[in-house]
Amino acid sequence: MFLTVTLNTALDVTYRVPRLRAHESHRITDVTERPGGKGLNVARVLAALGHPVTATGFAGGPTGAHVRALLAAAAGPLTDALVDVAGNTRRTVAVVDGSTGDTTQLNEAGPEVTAAEWAAFLDAYAALLAGGPRPAAGAGAERAAPVRAVALCGSLPPGVPVGAYAELVRAAHAAGVPVLLDTSGEPLRRGVAARPDLVKPNAAELAQLTGSTEPLRAADDARRRGAHAVAASLGADGLLAVTADGTWRAAPPRPVPGNPTGAGDSAVAGLLSGLAEGLDWPARLARAAALSAATVAAPVAGEFDAATYADTLPRIEITSGRGAAREGA
Amino acid sequence: MFLTVTLNTALDVTYRVPRLRAHESHRITDVTERPGGKGLNVARVLAALGHPVTATGFAGGPTGAHVRALLAAAAGPLTDALVDVAGNTRRTVAVVDGSTGDTTQLNEAGPEVTAAEWAAFLDAYAALLAGGPRPAAGAGAERAAPVRAVALCGSLPPGVPVGAYAELVRAAHAAGVPVLLDTSGEPLRRGVAARPDLVKPNAAELAQLTGSTEPLRAADDARRRGAHAVAASLGADGLLAVTADGTWRAAPPRPVPGNPTGAGDSAVAGLLSGLAEGLDWPARLARAAALSAATVAAPVAGEFDAATYADTLPRIEITSGRGAAREGA
Repeated sequence: MFLTVTLNTALDVTYRVPRLRAHESHRITDVTERPGGKGLNVARVLAALGHPVTATGFAGGPTGAHVRALLAAAAGPLTDALVDVAGNTRRTVAVVDGSTGDTTQLNEAGPEVTAAEWAAFLDAYAALLAGGPRPAAGAGAERAAPVRAVALCGSLPPGVPVGAYAELVRAAHAAGVPVLLDTSGEPLRRGVAARPDLVKPNAAELAQLTGSTEPLRAADDARRRGAHAVAASLGADGLLAVTADGTWRAAPPRPVPGNPTGAGDSAVAGLLSGLAEGLDWPARLARAAALSAATVAAPVAGEFDAATYADTLPRIEITSGRGAAREGA
Repeated sequence: MFLTVTLNTALDVTYRVPRLRAHESHRITDVTERPGGKGLNVARVLAALGHPVTATGFAGGPTGAHVRALLAAAAGPLTDALVDVAGNTRRTVAVVDGSTGDTTQLNEAGPEVTAAEWAAFLDAYAALLAGGPRPAAGAGAERAAPVRAVALCGSLPPGVPVGAYAELVRAAHAAGVPVLLDTSGEPLRRGVAARPDLVKPNAAELAQLTGSTEPLRAADDARRRGAHAVAASLGADGLLAVTADGTWRAAPPRPVPGNPTGAGDSAVAGLLSGLAEGLDWPARLARAAALSAATVAAPVAGEFDAATYADTLPRIEITSGRGAAREGA
């Protein structure tokens, strides 16, 4: 199974209004809700592809209970191993203006996590990495399947130490489990130094980490900082992978119109899915790029469109080598 | 005890952002939540004043559970007799722009109420009016205290018949319980025709009902349409009461700065509270006007500031007679 970690889970709420006018009153014509936070998005895509996945991280309060109920209704072999916190899980509210299609985003910060709650999470995480009993397990003390890889995803809630991901990378390696890291800012900087197997930044995160806006140079720099491999998601330019085995670019033949929310998370799921099936790097990247495109094309932000995925996968263009990677930029 | 009916309860969420810009992303710096819907506001103010009150209406889904948990934590003798619905109770989101203090309001419509749920509510309401067992009562089948008055408040959720308030007024009268009605539009028009004891419109609702923007003339018209008495909340102009016993105006000596959200609901609570204590109309109106002012002055929308209430109550100016009422307009 895979393990995903989402320390700052969310209830993602999307409101549609005919026209958004600041400082006026609006009747919402359509409401959608889904479990959010990057790691839960990755887990849902993996489960939808049929891969057993366990989702851990924090959930608390009425919003946390709501997220868990939505997660329980998700398709596929997804196990909820979220750890309780006293605070209320955050909401994110996306207000879509029907007249323009533009989105106004309102993001809560997330619950304050106490030192005791962080310690409880570390214990639960170690048990999951060891294939031990899940925190939510019943009297049977059942043992989960061995963990193929762990994905550490998204922002940190208030109270979690900024070096959290570095600690989680080291714990995974101590358990012999490969780690993918997808975060930003100082948590990414510190996490990279702990030598994760793969980082999946977007262009802005990679530039912020390295100071370079040239993706190939920045990826080289991220590897010098500790990442064994880098798979950068570059929006319409597709994915750039720089690894010990080689350098590749993967992109759909033309940009896909739609909502890019969750496209990076689907790329992470594609990379892990390809790893599980023993695919080589070019095939893994093709899967990641096709899932990204299928997520952009989906009518609901963060879902993926299965038909677009099937249609796009054989059309992904892969180029190999540093010269081609540089030209693609 | 008092009974309040809130068919379209809500979770009122307030987000504060440094500056709201349409089509951008915002980090929320402060989140507050409270049980909402006009009847729940009335119930909370009555309970805070020490009056036993039972709150009925509908609640459902994760948001309904959240509203009920917040209601359970409210101060004073408040009993939750809300009736379950399958749909999710609505949220209202108020986004306060810290740079201007202006508020952008986003209102969900509320759950679709089925015919069976409406029928179940009518049964529960009849039992409450008869002082029968509360729907949430345990095996003891305890009997509630007799109902002194019922307040029917706010909008109707989808699926509830537009003549709902007329039916609830008639049921209350059949049980010998006086009725206060505070709603708008067609539900108000139909409810007034069922001859409630008191209606509490604001200026816009009164004008919409009667076609007249002159409050005294409009109140006379509302009485001709069926209301035994009218207490209209006129914002900074205070309250105007037109009753079989006389006509009065009540207002603080000068306008109170602040947020008017919930001020009308506090006026309803003041009118009922004065009724319970056997106060005459001028004293009831003074209490209603002072609670309104104390709600405008409170830092959190819909709460009332106890110090402002105590300070304002003896300063409310009451004028009597139709001449004075007309001049006050």
